[in-house]
Amino acid sequence: MQHAALTIDPAFRIAEVDPRLFGSFVEHMGRCVYTGIFEPGHATADDEGFRGDVAELVRELAPPILRYPGGNFVSGYNWEDGIGPRESRPRTLDLAWRSYETNQVGVDEFTKWARRMGSEPMMAVNLGTRGIDAARNLVEYANHPGGSYWSDLRRRNGTSEPHGIALWCLGNEMDGPWQLGHKTAAEYARLAAETARAMRRVDPSIELVACGSSHQRMPTFGDWEATVLRETYDLVDYVSLHGYYEQRGDDRGSFLASGVNMDRFIESVIATCDHVRGAGQHRKRVNLAFDEWNVWYLGKFAGEENLDWSERPRLIEDQYSVVDAVVVGSLLISLLRHADRVKIACLAQLVNVIAPIRSEPDGPAWRQTTFHPYALTSRHGRGSVLRVEPTGPTYETSWMGEVPVVDATAVHDEETGTVTVFAVNRDQHEPVALDIDLRSLPNLTTGEHTALFDDDPDATNTAAQPDRVTPTRLADVKATEGTITAVLPALSWNMLRFDSR
Amino acid sequence: MQHAALTIDPAFRIAEVDPRLFGSFVEHMGRCVYTGIFEPGHATADDEGFRGDVAELVRELAPPILRYPGGNFVSGYNWEDGIGPRESRPRTLDLAWRSYETNQVGVDEFTKWARRMGSEPMMAVNLGTRGIDAARNLVEYANHPGGSYWSDLRRRNGTSEPHGIALWCLGNEMDGPWQLGHKTAAEYARLAAETARAMRRVDPSIELVACGSSHQRMPTFGDWEATVLRETYDLVDYVSLHGYYEQRGDDRGSFLASGVNMDRFIESVIATCDHVRGAGQHRKRVNLAFDEWNVWYLGKFAGEENLDWSERPRLIEDQYSVVDAVVVGSLLISLLRHADRVKIACLAQLVNVIAPIRSEPDGPAWRQTTFHPYALTSRHGRGSVLRVEPTGPTYETSWMGEVPVVDATAVHDEETGTVTVFAVNRDQHEPVALDIDLRSLPNLTTGEHTALFDDDPDATNTAAQPDRVTPTRLADVKATEGTITAVLPALSWNMLRFDSR
Amino acid sequence: MQHAALTIDPAFRIAEVDPRLFGSFVEHMGRCVYTGIFEPGHATADDEGFRGDVAELVRELAPPILRYPGGNFVSGYNWEDGIGPRESRPRTLDLAWRSYETNQVGVDEFTKWARRMGSEPMMAVNLGTRGIDAARNLVEYANHPGGSYWSDLRRRNGTSEPHGIALWCLGNEMDGPWQLGHKTAAEYARLAAETARAMRRVDPSIELVACGSSHQRMPTFGDWEATVLRETYDLVDYVSLHGYYEQRGDDRGSFLASGVNMDRFIESVIATCDHVRGAGQHRKRVNLAFDEWNVWYLGKFAGEENLDWSERPRLIEDQYSVVDAVVVGSLLISLLRHADRVKIACLAQLVNVIAPIRSEPDGPAWRQTTFHPYALTSRHGRGSVLRVEPTGPTYETSWMGEVPVVDATAVHDEETGTVTVFAVNRDQHEPVALDIDLRSLPNLTTGEHTALFDDDPDATNTAAQPDRVTPTRLADVKATEGTITAVLPALSWNMLRFDSR
Repeated sequence: MQHAALTIDPAFRIAEVDPRLFGSFVEHMGRCVYTGIFEPGHATADDEGFRGDVAELVRELAPPILRYPGGNFVSGYNWEDGIGPRESRPRTLDLAWRSYETNQVGVDEFTKWARRMGSEPMMAVNLGTRGIDAARNLVEYANHPGGSYWSDLRRRNGTSEPHGIALWCLGNEMDGPWQLGHKTAAEYARLAAETARAMRRVDPSIELVACGSSHQRMPTFGDWEATVLRETYDLVDYVSLHGYYEQRGDDRGSFLASGVNMDRFIESVIATCDHVRGAGQHRKRVNLAFDEWNVWYLGKFAGEENLDWSERPRLIEDQYSVVDAVVVGSLLISLLRHADRVKIACLAQLVNVIAPIRSEPDGPAWRQTTFHPYALTSRHGRGSVLRVEPTGPTYETSWMGEVPVVDATAVHDEETGTVTVFAVNRDQHEPVALDIDLRSLPNLTTGEHTALFDDDPDATNTAAQPDRVTPTRLADVKATEGTITAVLPALSWNMLRFDSR
Repeated sequence: MQHAALTIDPAFRIAEVDPRLFGSFVEHMGRCVYTGIFEPGHATADDEGFRGDVAELVRELAPPILRYPGGNFVSGYNWEDGIGPRESRPRTLDLAWRSYETNQVGVDEFTKWARRMGSEPMMAVNLGTRGIDAARNLVEYANHPGGSYWSDLRRRNGTSEPHGIALWCLGNEMDGPWQLGHKTAAEYARLAAETARAMRRVDPSIELVACGSSHQRMPTFGDWEATVLRETYDLVDYVSLHGYYEQRGDDRGSFLASGVNMDRFIESVIATCDHVRGAGQHRKRVNLAFDEWNVWYLGKFAGEENLDWSERPRLIEDQYSVVDAVVVGSLLISLLRHADRVKIACLAQLVNVIAPIRSEPDGPAWRQTTFHPYALTSRHGRGSVLRVEPTGPTYETSWMGEVPVVDATAVHDEETGTVTVFAVNRDQHEPVALDIDLRSLPNLTTGEHTALFDDDPDATNTAAQPDRVTPTRLADVKATEGTITAVLPALSWNMLRFDSR
Repeated sequence: MQHAALTIDPAFRIAEVDPRLFGSFVEHMGRCVYTGIFEPGHATADDEGFRGDVAELVRELAPPILRYPGGNFVSGYNWEDGIGPRESRPRTLDLAWRSYETNQVGVDEFTKWARRMGSEPMMAVNLGTRGIDAARNLVEYANHPGGSYWSDLRRRNGTSEPHGIALWCLGNEMDGPWQLGHKTAAEYARLAAETARAMRRVDPSIELVACGSSHQRMPTFGDWEATVLRETYDLVDYVSLHGYYEQRGDDRGSFLASGVNMDRFIESVIATCDHVRGAGQHRKRVNLAFDEWNVWYLGKFAGEENLDWSERPRLIEDQYSVVDAVVVGSLLISLLRHADRVKIACLAQLVNVIAPIRSEPDGPAWRQTTFHPYALTSRHGRGSVLRVEPTGPTYETSWMGEVPVVDATAVHDEETGTVTVFAVNRDQHEPVALDIDLRSLPNLTTGEHTALFDDDPDATNTAAQPDRVTPTRLADVKATEGTITAVLPALSWNMLRFDSR
């Protein structure tokens, strides 16, 4: 059997994990909001119209932040349409997804629901069709205590205390020609700077995310970030990254290497941030918000131009397989490994739309395969990320060249002493033995091994078989003289936990 | 007598005439709308307040499209002011023409009236003081069937079916410093692109016209078009041209050569379109919309800065002479000759304001001299334009150098077989014999000859003498062995029709 | 049998053919000069060392102009190395083609030889490694009568009368990164302008060609020309185009459509010239010099980086087939059709290097297949090109979309009355009947039909079989009521001549 190896030593620490690394995303798109989180009349609906069965799964995931309300949606959105008495809210055209928007959920309802889920909202303002004025009004509406037009309107609308939304996105994917009100880098840089200034004048405590590139292959990638950060460096806290991965044709080997691509993407954006920092003689660091990421079978999407106008259409409800779950797990490893600079990440999206949770109107809700690595990493991936320097076999991919068969990271909970190793085996046919050198932590006990894999890597969970794919407890962890060996099944995501004696 | 010659051969075809070449233009300016097409209380007014006498003349012209509502007016216009109950519409300041605008006619009234005239509206959006949002809302109001805020508002305002406006102008003369919200080429290019994208998201079936130069002598002419088209090539269908002609001092010879100038202007814009096409490796062609053209005695206009605030003032109500009508006829020849690339043209404007139709408040309506060549060319200039390669005498002008005395084009109606030759004789004193080689169409009979000319080339039509100048039927067409000879009177516009036997 | 049709009518004339449309090109490259036109010691060599057998074939082609001395070669060339006593000329490194250059032929020898061939030199100056000074000195050496340093040096070198070289190229392919001293568009525009100004100061009568793009797929195509022409419009007479065509894989249908591509290329460059003309309010027109064109199996060329240093190496001595000759014939049709704007064209090159003439050292010289359409079009394609508006069947290509099976043009010799039709049949398997409507010229007699085709379309001419492929006289031209029908063999180039009775 092939062997890979890594060393756990708390002396080699990357950074404390920011819990917001395990955020998610609720866009007014398809059925994420309507018949996703919100469905008055559903058997499980609460008084506000939100589904109880979906809420239960969301609480199990417990995303610390939820980005809202888009996405492409936000670039044509008038937030005022979503406040006040529900019956007088307009039915509008969402040009991003060619959908009718009923505006039955808006900033007030969403923020309250998110808090009930244990989540903080991460609110995006519209820098497509709108600008400074609409943005500063929304901050006033959401965060100002009272005594002014918009804050008093919030109070009249039933929310006496300010929402206190701490984290804001300055638009969405403004580098993409598909975006309503798409901007050049120079245009966006100026608009983001002036909007940031005005928003901070309303509430200086907020944190701001500037739009980076929509994906790494954008022709303006890198130049966009540099232009935007040169103009906004002192005004923003984060720059965003978006990345979606899919298997192209039969090339599963490349798809399994998605995390290698994400590593390079993140490292490139870090370099750009630090380039601007150096050139501008800045002290502060701008960090990264990977605020849209997932597996997305974009190749199967007809494109928004080909949609007919309808309400809450079934859009990109990708059904995820075991392989997709392993890739999601490996992308989480990549995010953890960059915990020193990536402080925020959002699995896009939360329900139905390329989501870990699926629901049917008037029907059940269930966990997709990807739910499991995401939930387990979120729950156990808290503490300090350690450098583990894995060694081992490699394989060749057409996309990313030579990549390691095993990818792994480790998180050390300094309070409890627990160490959790997250590892993927990208070999599609053979198990790999992973040797973990734990000599620097002699008090750790042999750990428990949870793995996600299946004889059928294309297996999925469905309404009929919601638990077809779930994690398995394995018992093949062996300890010898400070080294623990675990056998990682072929094409698997793994979590190994070692507790303090 | 001098001779000119041309050859008719259907094998040498330029293109099918797009009927929209014979469009006109209704701007909220002076008395074009108010006391022009619209005058409640006029003896001939219909239930909607539109004048019946003017409507009769408009139907006689039958312009296939009518550009609306401006012109310079549109760059400060809020279209929402012109919808809903008339009594609650605001009285606003039109900053373009220093006029009070009562908003008694708006998009709903105009569109319905245009349709009653047999015309399609060509609607301009405001890219001076406004942008993407107002534009997409107007498209939604006009063209979306219903079920959304703006489309439902249209329905509530009394128009249940969508207006289905097919053709839209992305602003007006945005290169001109006189324009409210004037833009640089780069600014306009970006705004036009993003507005186009949003408008197409609402209704993908619409056609769009990007602003070209306000006239050929603009310092940015050519570069403006290139910059705008590089940014918008795939998003627009047409680029606009505007051109006004007048006699300067006594130089009638140059004025009569206006069509030569129009030819060069059109050919230069075609070159710019095709340059951008080549450099961008595009397959599609962008065509031309000459959406403002006419004779206009600009030299006599005091300038909009010198106007006093008033309602429906008498603005540039130029009274046209026989010479002006001959020039209008020759400009139509130039447009027809470029039918392969000029698909849209608008005689500016329709009533009172440099217009073929004049009307007096509470008084009569009548045809100016220019009405006649415009009406006749529009009625008979349908079918395929043929290359005719005229040869003949020339004369020297200070403006355009050496120009042909006779200019001509021919249109072949392939269904009926009729050929119509349009020709001007620019010689101010002598008739010219025009030899037409028709040997390739041996079945044509000797045609009828209609001409516009007068012993007094400065004669005009007035309320008192509305038919002082009208076309004349001539009988001096002679046929010999496949060649037909017609004598074109001095300083005349001519139409020669040859029917199939 | 399928039919195509066209109409001949001298009333519809494109332009007089400039004889320089049939030029060729002699570069110091491979064996074009040495053992090509020049080989002292060859059995047929004259006193100057030039081969008599090659000269005989050149005189048969009679190219009115010969571009010289490069090509890529010129961008590293010091013209002074090629003058004065031959024995003291240096042996230099030609970095363009990794060859030893003996400099035994230079400006004096070449110019005299060209004149003996009946050709005018079209001289290129080096704007790669050199600039204004070397260029103005060469003009002084070549064209100044005497009494100055460089002109007196020419006289001392044996040429008392000035060479009077009328046509000059401002460098070669300066947009290509492969070019020594390659320039950006802005750099070249400035250098070309200043060099042009200095050269014209020496001899105001010369005509100048600015470098356009090296081919249509250059990433800077279109923008390059616009930038260069904006800076040089009043200083130059022509802008250059280069285009090489080859069959890719088995796709012969696309290869046969090369002329369609050449049409679009030419029309795009015309558009750019006229765009700059319009934007700059220029009266003059800049015309086109297609000063390198041919079939070239570039895919088979190893690339100049892979050559070993040697003297007169065998470089790109492509052996042309019947298909290649048909494509060369069709490219000549495309050039003729644009005779209003393309005034100069050079088949690249004249001998051995992708050339219509081949020669062996100490051996024979012979005509390649492509020699024939080139020689016949040059001899008979003089007069006025007529519009012929061919109609007929089309076929689908992967490269150029839908293209006509038959392409054709016609030239009218107004002195003799002769009309010559040039036509290709691109159908690889079936003949096509071409109906020619000659009713407008009733005095023409039924013509003679010369065609190039072969049962084996891959057949070539070689030293052993120099006349394997030659044109054939056909006798299947039939006349009925002013229409003449000729059957064009499958995959053929054709010339049909109609003489005045």
